Amino acid sequence: MSAARDARFMALALSLGQRGQGCVWPNPAVGCVIVQGARIVGRGWTQPGGRPHAETMALAQAGALSKRATVFVTLEPCAHHGATPPCAEALIAAGIARCVVAISDPDPRVSGKGIAKLQAAGIEVSAGCQAQEALLAHRGFFSRLQNGRPRVTLKLATSLDGRIATASGESQWITGAEARRDVHGLRACHDAVLVGGGTARADNPSLTLRGLGLDRQPVRIVASRHLDFDAPALQASRDVAPLWLCHGPQARARGAWQNQCDALVQVPLAADGQLDLSVLMQALGEKGLTSVLCEGGGQLAASLLRAGLVDDVILYTAGLALGADGLAGLGDLALSHLHTAPRFELISARKIGSDIRQDWRRLS
Amino acid sequence: MSAARDARFMALALSLGQRGQGCVWPNPAVGCVIVQGARIVGRGWTQPGGRPHAETMALAQAGALSKRATVFVTLEPCAHHGATPPCAEALIAAGIARCVVAISDPDPRVSGKGIAKLQAAGIEVSAGCQAQEALLAHRGFFSRLQNGRPRVTLKLATSLDGRIATASGESQWITGAEARRDVHGLRACHDAVLVGGGTARADNPSLTLRGLGLDRQPVRIVASRHLDFDAPALQASRDVAPLWLCHGPQARARGAWQNQCDALVQVPLAADGQLDLSVLMQALGEKGLTSVLCEGGGQLAASLLRAGLVDDVILYTAGLALGADGLAGLGDLALSHLHTAPRFELISARKIGSDIRQDWRRLS
Repeated sequence: MSAARDARFMALALSLGQRGQGCVWPNPAVGCVIVQGARIVGRGWTQPGGRPHAETMALAQAGALSKRATVFVTLEPCAHHGATPPCAEALIAAGIARCVVAISDPDPRVSGKGIAKLQAAGIEVSAGCQAQEALLAHRGFFSRLQNGRPRVTLKLATSLDGRIATASGESQWITGAEARRDVHGLRACHDAVLVGGGTARADNPSLTLRGLGLDRQPVRIVASRHLDFDAPALQASRDVAPLWLCHGPQARARGAWQNQCDALVQVPLAADGQLDLSVLMQALGEKGLTSVLCEGGGQLAASLLRAGLVDDVILYTAGLALGADGLAGLGDLALSHLHTAPRFELISARKIGSDIRQDWRRLS
Repeated sequence: MSAARDARFMALALSLGQRGQGCVWPNPAVGCVIVQGARIVGRGWTQPGGRPHAETMALAQAGALSKRATVFVTLEPCAHHGATPPCAEALIAAGIARCVVAISDPDPRVSGKGIAKLQAAGIEVSAGCQAQEALLAHRGFFSRLQNGRPRVTLKLATSLDGRIATASGESQWITGAEARRDVHGLRACHDAVLVGGGTARADNPSLTLRGLGLDRQPVRIVASRHLDFDAPALQASRDVAPLWLCHGPQARARGAWQNQCDALVQVPLAADGQLDLSVLMQALGEKGLTSVLCEGGGQLAASLLRAGLVDDVILYTAGLALGADGLAGLGDLALSHLHTAPRFELISARKIGSDIRQDWRRLS
């Protein structure tokens, strides 16, 4: 097979893998395509909850047609016995001839071992096909394994001049219905949604995923030092989606929340007296999250940026001006110099309704 | 000829007309194409300073080939004897068979009369071809004739969160070299560049057009109530481009500036004690300007928005965050309600270097 043909099948596997984003944590959202001759005989992706794996699903679909077939998989097949038998063994048992892998698994239990196992069984393995794209697709999973924390996306929805409300506090709506619907798409492909206590208090959000016809829900997380907020909409939707609370050591309201949420995560305070967000993110990583979408407010967003924890910024800009007396979408950063400002690279920009969405990725 | 073919030739005429933007005021930047059979035999556009007109240039190029030709012109040919003989008469004298006009001239001395004159001479006239595009191309000229003021473009170059400097005042550079070069392209297609006194004082800008290999220069205008600024770079470049100063009734430094600038424009104060910008823009219209590019600062920009004088916003966004303690790119707007915010429609967005340029046009 030609490299270009391999790349096309791998691109398909990557797009299948995307279906699992947001609902397979702590597992990676892998995609798999099985090709017999010129015919696609199996397609699979990591299923909700993280199992079955993509390879298992694709092999089941292909059945006997997987014999002598070529398998395209976006991440090195697992070689260890976890909750399920290793995929590498399943591929060997199916009698495949060739396995094209986008990237190796950074998990030390797997890395290189899946490929070695396939090769030892006489299967031809090509690694590195669409590797850059796969690295991006799996970067939440990689972030957790390599840095111990989920990938963090910061969502900002502001006026042309970076404001989220008028001086009088009016904020509904800055962006249009299409952009607000698009935010639900963001929620759908993140494991969790995070807001600060101030936003929970002021907006009484439910943070659920609505209107897209999807039956998944992100974990809702509120980070609040004292847990001194009341959020009826979050509590009222606990049967729909889990609610986790991250709080400081002296959270006065912890007791009252005990039975009103699905997890309480205690986090030490940083030097500035606020929650130590690096520790908070490590704790979320330990709980299995691979991606978190921060939806505000401005102080939490600024603290995440200051702590170097923001990997992606999704900026929705609406075509109106609110002025410097309006409320800023991002809090103080206390930058000593311009060269210390957090910097991002433009990935894409597109019109959504009457607004524009810009995707920026951290410059490392 | 088919309508689609007409539209293609008119699009060419419009693009030729653009060459005159910024250097033909108070005249419109018209484009003209003369077609004999299927062959383009003449191309013209309004020349620097406003004369010769586009039709004159195209007719000179076509020579005898204009006989029985079709002429495409982006604005109704003039019918009155001004500084030059009317173009309508020149077209008649050349013996053209057909004239395709994008839109009529809103100038009461011309409106409809040019077309009537051509028709009376037996020339077939089609009007309204690419009318929307022509309306946009000539909207500075139309603004001056219909509203008495130039079209106003506001340029903003900010961080992701709408800031133009760190809390410590560092501002060089927020946007990259490519975006800053693009701003010179904006200067090139506006008749004048406008800044407030604070910006003149703080940045000591020259506001000249540089680096594009063009031998035109916009008028540089500083709006300053008291003229209490010192701007060596503006003065040092007076042999390159004119410098106009707009000031209030009690401008203490007026005397000192008398021989240091090319025009002094006195403007009354508005209710808020600042220069009355509507009167200022009317005065600039009276002086012949059809388009003005405001390059800041934030207070002047906000005042123009508050006064409803901003027609277009060109926003350059750089991929960095500066925080709410940074300097806002736009001053206070004192909005009482969200629905009173100035609103704009997205026309285009494109990457320029590592930044993004968004073009927004006022929603009327």
